[in-house]
Amino acid sequence: MSTFGSIYRVTTFGESHCKAVGVIIDGVPPGLPLSEADVQPQLDRRRPGQSDLTTPRDEKDKATILSGTEKGYTLGTPIAINVPNQDQRPHDYGEMDYYPRPSHADFTYLQKYGIKASSGGGRSSARETIGRVAAAAVAEKYLALTHGIEVVAFVSSIGNVAMEPMSVWESQEQEAEWLGRWKKWWQYLKTVQRKEVDASDVRCPDPEIAQKMRERILASKNVSDSIGGTIVCVIRNAPTGLGEPCFDKLEAKLAHAMLSIPATKGFEIGSGFAGTDIPGHVHNDPFILRGERLGTTTNFSGGIQGGISNGEDIYFKVAFKPPATIGQAQATATYDGIDGELAAKGRHDPCVLPRAVPIVEAMAVLTIMDTLLQQLGRKAAHTLLPADANIPAVLIGELGKGKVVGKGKQVDGEVA
Amino acid sequence: MSTFGSIYRVTTFGESHCKAVGVIIDGVPPGLPLSEADVQPQLDRRRPGQSDLTTPRDEKDKATILSGTEKGYTLGTPIAINVPNQDQRPHDYGEMDYYPRPSHADFTYLQKYGIKASSGGGRSSARETIGRVAAAAVAEKYLALTHGIEVVAFVSSIGNVAMEPMSVWESQEQEAEWLGRWKKWWQYLKTVQRKEVDASDVRCPDPEIAQKMRERILASKNVSDSIGGTIVCVIRNAPTGLGEPCFDKLEAKLAHAMLSIPATKGFEIGSGFAGTDIPGHVHNDPFILRGERLGTTTNFSGGIQGGISNGEDIYFKVAFKPPATIGQAQATATYDGIDGELAAKGRHDPCVLPRAVPIVEAMAVLTIMDTLLQQLGRKAAHTLLPADANIPAVLIGELGKGKVVGKGKQVDGEVA
Amino acid sequence: MSTFGSIYRVTTFGESHCKAVGVIIDGVPPGLPLSEADVQPQLDRRRPGQSDLTTPRDEKDKATILSGTEKGYTLGTPIAINVPNQDQRPHDYGEMDYYPRPSHADFTYLQKYGIKASSGGGRSSARETIGRVAAAAVAEKYLALTHGIEVVAFVSSIGNVAMEPMSVWESQEQEAEWLGRWKKWWQYLKTVQRKEVDASDVRCPDPEIAQKMRERILASKNVSDSIGGTIVCVIRNAPTGLGEPCFDKLEAKLAHAMLSIPATKGFEIGSGFAGTDIPGHVHNDPFILRGERLGTTTNFSGGIQGGISNGEDIYFKVAFKPPATIGQAQATATYDGIDGELAAKGRHDPCVLPRAVPIVEAMAVLTIMDTLLQQLGRKAAHTLLPADANIPAVLIGELGKGKVVGKGKQVDGEVA
Amino acid sequence: MSTFGSIYRVTTFGESHCKAVGVIIDGVPPGLPLSEADVQPQLDRRRPGQSDLTTPRDEKDKATILSGTEKGYTLGTPIAINVPNQDQRPHDYGEMDYYPRPSHADFTYLQKYGIKASSGGGRSSARETIGRVAAAAVAEKYLALTHGIEVVAFVSSIGNVAMEPMSVWESQEQEAEWLGRWKKWWQYLKTVQRKEVDASDVRCPDPEIAQKMRERILASKNVSDSIGGTIVCVIRNAPTGLGEPCFDKLEAKLAHAMLSIPATKGFEIGSGFAGTDIPGHVHNDPFILRGERLGTTTNFSGGIQGGISNGEDIYFKVAFKPPATIGQAQATATYDGIDGELAAKGRHDPCVLPRAVPIVEAMAVLTIMDTLLQQLGRKAAHTLLPADANIPAVLIGELGKGKVVGKGKQVDGEVA
Repeated sequence: MSTFGSIYRVTTFGESHCKAVGVIIDGVPPGLPLSEADVQPQLDRRRPGQSDLTTPRDEKDKATILSGTEKGYTLGTPIAINVPNQDQRPHDYGEMDYYPRPSHADFTYLQKYGIKASSGGGRSSARETIGRVAAAAVAEKYLALTHGIEVVAFVSSIGNVAMEPMSVWESQEQEAEWLGRWKKWWQYLKTVQRKEVDASDVRCPDPEIAQKMRERILASKNVSDSIGGTIVCVIRNAPTGLGEPCFDKLEAKLAHAMLSIPATKGFEIGSGFAGTDIPGHVHNDPFILRGERLGTTTNFSGGIQGGISNGEDIYFKVAFKPPATIGQAQATATYDGIDGELAAKGRHDPCVLPRAVPIVEAMAVLTIMDTLLQQLGRKAAHTLLPADANIPAVLIGELGKGKVVGKGKQVDGEVA
Repeated sequence: MSTFGSIYRVTTFGESHCKAVGVIIDGVPPGLPLSEADVQPQLDRRRPGQSDLTTPRDEKDKATILSGTEKGYTLGTPIAINVPNQDQRPHDYGEMDYYPRPSHADFTYLQKYGIKASSGGGRSSARETIGRVAAAAVAEKYLALTHGIEVVAFVSSIGNVAMEPMSVWESQEQEAEWLGRWKKWWQYLKTVQRKEVDASDVRCPDPEIAQKMRERILASKNVSDSIGGTIVCVIRNAPTGLGEPCFDKLEAKLAHAMLSIPATKGFEIGSGFAGTDIPGHVHNDPFILRGERLGTTTNFSGGIQGGISNGEDIYFKVAFKPPATIGQAQATATYDGIDGELAAKGRHDPCVLPRAVPIVEAMAVLTIMDTLLQQLGRKAAHTLLPADANIPAVLIGELGKGKVVGKGKQVDGEVA
Repeated sequence: MSTFGSIYRVTTFGESHCKAVGVIIDGVPPGLPLSEADVQPQLDRRRPGQSDLTTPRDEKDKATILSGTEKGYTLGTPIAINVPNQDQRPHDYGEMDYYPRPSHADFTYLQKYGIKASSGGGRSSARETIGRVAAAAVAEKYLALTHGIEVVAFVSSIGNVAMEPMSVWESQEQEAEWLGRWKKWWQYLKTVQRKEVDASDVRCPDPEIAQKMRERILASKNVSDSIGGTIVCVIRNAPTGLGEPCFDKLEAKLAHAMLSIPATKGFEIGSGFAGTDIPGHVHNDPFILRGERLGTTTNFSGGIQGGISNGEDIYFKVAFKPPATIGQAQATATYDGIDGELAAKGRHDPCVLPRAVPIVEAMAVLTIMDTLLQQLGRKAAHTLLPADANIPAVLIGELGKGKVVGKGKQVDGEVA
Repeated sequence: MSTFGSIYRVTTFGESHCKAVGVIIDGVPPGLPLSEADVQPQLDRRRPGQSDLTTPRDEKDKATILSGTEKGYTLGTPIAINVPNQDQRPHDYGEMDYYPRPSHADFTYLQKYGIKASSGGGRSSARETIGRVAAAAVAEKYLALTHGIEVVAFVSSIGNVAMEPMSVWESQEQEAEWLGRWKKWWQYLKTVQRKEVDASDVRCPDPEIAQKMRERILASKNVSDSIGGTIVCVIRNAPTGLGEPCFDKLEAKLAHAMLSIPATKGFEIGSGFAGTDIPGHVHNDPFILRGERLGTTTNFSGGIQGGISNGEDIYFKVAFKPPATIGQAQATATYDGIDGELAAKGRHDPCVLPRAVPIVEAMAVLTIMDTLLQQLGRKAAHTLLPADANIPAVLIGELGKGKVVGKGKQVDGEVA
């Protein structure tokens, strides 16, 4: 269905050629200062026509808040946001329409619904993500105001032009050097800012690699081909305790959120696939006292353990395939199975990565917002109960040492 | 929460040391022949103590159906399945209990709930997956009986001992050779059977690689360390039309399902991360008439386009990290932040992969079952409407050619 | 939250003074012919300013379909419907704003959200129901086209001016006469049409009683007071099998739906409260063969048994209180607890019943639509299984009679 | 489906003749002291065989907690509770099985599922409510410990033997006398206790009327007939702010909850159907300062305004029909439509009311618990935002009076 989230509930609507796209957001906390100016910047980062790397279609994508606010504050009631489609013209049919576009949604939508929109893939259009980005902008303001949470995504590879040098474990001898590279990476994720990301139109914060990525994309564009890549995203200052055991682990919800973005093919949390070849004694993140609570000295876990955030930076990577719609002629078949050739006309993105950065951020924000509201509720419910229900404290009593455990206080040295 | 699925709804319960673990399955189609004998085999493949590669704890994990069936048929009412815990003894506390295990759920559960189960990570225990496997066995019987759907998973790598030779795109010259390897792989996925998988206790169907995987696992075991790996899963004979646009794309639900399995770190559908470096003109899967409907000549898409199944094999890969609990001593801190050393006692899996194979299959089955029941409902609702609502047919009329399109019939050559 | 239904999912937005009110409908079957002309009539029956019985505010409430249709057919994707608010002016504050209106939502909204909309009760405004009525108009078209389902509501009482003579059981002697009145009532429900309902502006289909109801409402209006009443609704031609056992019984969902309408105070299904004093031997509805399947000779059950529709007419009654906003001065207190006097200015409905008729119909339609789509899915899933799973057939076999039972065929007389 | 609630989620399982009935409760706050002793008392009030007014079947209904607690505290993980069925024997088929019982669920279950359990109505059995009562006992402990919430239900009528004298509005002259009776009733609801309710086995707290009710039930029992009645329930000390606007108004959720109990036919909140004939100027509940916040001087609203609790006592009434299974011979038809006669054998309740009292309390508790946890979460989310978002405060500023409004403080007299 078209709804994401259980407490911060986002429901989107709209296709390419209908009157508007948009969203209803239910469950917005009341009393949040909010206006269209909070929503527009991420929509502008998402919209087409930003540079020669993206489709030259130039759509304004202006958001209007229809409900749920008054005098600049949210009321706690549903916020509807509307973005008119500039191109509402009925699609001009041509021979191309006999062909389902290879690796596009034309065929599967017809199979699913038994009916075919003029735009082919209907809701698979990237325009559907406008509602998500708008809904996330509202949530992001809440997360920043109340917890200082920051979400930053950037392009980490285009084709084989890759930013990060991380690789799988090789041997015990090289452990120090190898681990050093990971630590540098974790440090990088602690500081990277959206401003640095936006310094290049490819949205890679490393200027040299960004330049190579530009060239890689333009090489595809020049031959009417397309190319994929990866986006890395980091979430900073998320509190501990987000995510639900079992089916709704935080990484499971993030994976769900990311693979719901058009053209995605893969997801990694923390060490990801590289982690499959790191021995347990290295991969485990040791604990250390950091201020009021425990932190970890490494972060292969990606900020999540047992499905629940541990207070460290949450980071993950998302794979995007090359866009399906290309200008090159492709041998394929019509809906009726007649072999032929299809060459897409019109203007297409040779690479979706630069415009996908705010969408990745949006889905990360929606996931964190929903899990945060869940956890705030649980904590509020727990807090009302008598305070002596802490089993670790009981445990210490059993051992006869009378120490308070699990409250961030020190116990004396005999324990260790 | 502890529920998966919207129509075939699975709710699990149970921790390591409570009286039982199990599941309620709501939404089981009525009239399905079912007994405990349908459920036990996958539980047996999941249970500990199967070989020297896994923990020697030997738990019987016998399932009892408490409700929802009569005279060997399902009634359509909730099926509750109960599996008693053999080890219900209260946990004996020791010095280890002062330490949250690194990269385990001990710390995050305490942060989330403000209370600590004697088993530490509570529901993060692999015993929780018993309910999932039982629920999937019921669904699998339905899928097999009604659609001939087959789900087969296998271990594709342990550490750097990897089965498949697939790699990213290199150059246009080598395209034929490179594509040949992919085609061989797709062919392999069409035929691999659970029997071949179970021929080795490591659950890799390639005997030679399986032997090397065994050695890799035992090498970790011998030094009280642990190791990760990957599992590939293929779903055959799934009909077209599964998965919902936007947020509940089939790959998004599969990613969610897989990342909800303990110790997972990554997910790839179809070409996955390798697909980020394959040019669009190669990555697109061309259509071809295959019997009554369109198929594709390649399958980089992994059987899903625009979030909806296209009738080709659905395949994906899941990354598992090395188990967190290891016998080696680790420098870490207590709950109170005192530095010290933790060496886990007891018996642990040096590698979860062999036992995770039926769990991966289970989560794939639950995902397919839920999306299939959704789609059956939509199709039934659509079928009751007048048949002339097919917009492609209208489209042809506009072009003045009077062809019937989108019904699998041929039109004459002039179209192409 | 603001969502109703699980498969046909309706999410509304909007308050009194924001830019628009409206709805997203997710789960609409694809291929349904649909345009604004299908939606407007029920909106027109709901809008203010229809007669001197309702508020003279004259709002046009023109609906626009923003998405989800093309060339006059639904695509299966979300349908967004937008209705601009004509009165978007910021509320002019006055002394009345110091007072929470008695029995209105002003106080409870402030308690719930900690923030107060200028309109006071925010989403408690009757304008919120516009989205529901629009969503139901879409569903109603589907129900009529595919099943011939008809939903008709009418005003059955205003204050003590009541239409139906039904009363509780008195004595065995008068049973025939008493039962005769019930039977006449059931017959009436079989035939009453919306056209007859709309013949009077009070929306009671009995002209004489309608006239008395008019007078009763105008009597209240003349003294700036208000009055309540009841609405009866009948659903004809609903198939058997709608409603879910246990928590989501059809009558439970109908009760939920009706009590979600502003100003409602009670709900009765079938015999309702009167049924508490009818002996079981009279209240039980005996079965009889009616065409292809069983029907019942009486209908105290109101078309639902065990929470599931039995194919008879479904009928229920809803109680509405007098509107809270009245022109008479009321002794009450300000938000700060200062005693004072409040006299509402402006234009108000002295009685909500006439305009509530299409809202009651709308919520009935939404409930039936959602349960119907659920049941279509279950039936489709069941139908794919082998046909011999019918336990009644087995039962007969056990009795050694070899009769086929439960398929609507006759068996010979020896059974009885 | 078989799940109730969104945050405190209760999923039940079990039929009459399967191995067990029970429940999984997800979302229980962690740290709640809990053992079987908390659950058993309400199960004992529900079980059959308590007196000569109920069925003499004597089932022990002993509950076992399978998971989710440790050392007497809840862990925050799902709590599974199991109650074995004592009568697991396969049903002995007889001629009665050819007949669907009139007004029972036999026919509708067969229509819905296409399969027939030996017990006929499957999940419509009252045994299904065991899981609900157990789940509510857990919630009730939380509500009592944290908010002092009390829930008391009692039998208010059996047939025409009714407890309360409340009737509809008659005339302005008698207003004082009539209002006096309502006030006495509201006072009664403030104090009535379960102990008083249980003083009679009919569970009416008025001893004289209880005696007449006994006689009324036994009169039905003596002629193998059955009789219905009403139950009133009051919820005391519920905080303000419970219930969601629009679709999930508190009274809508209560109505849903109550109509999900087998044999219910109607629901009234506050003044209910009587409120339809009370003029607005009387029906409106005026505000008054009561301690720290506003209260109301009358309570026709039943503690809910605009769908949200206002802090006053919440009270409602539920109608139950006479049980469908009676010993008297009834003229009816077989599944195949053959006319005949059915006389139920075995032991049945002539009246469900006495045993339904704890079930009504259970569903009220589950509703309050779920809405309370929702509201605790919203409040926690709101509290983290800057405090100056209170629009009433802004409003006062606009009027140039500089008063603080909506915080429970007094402003000087000029306002009124």
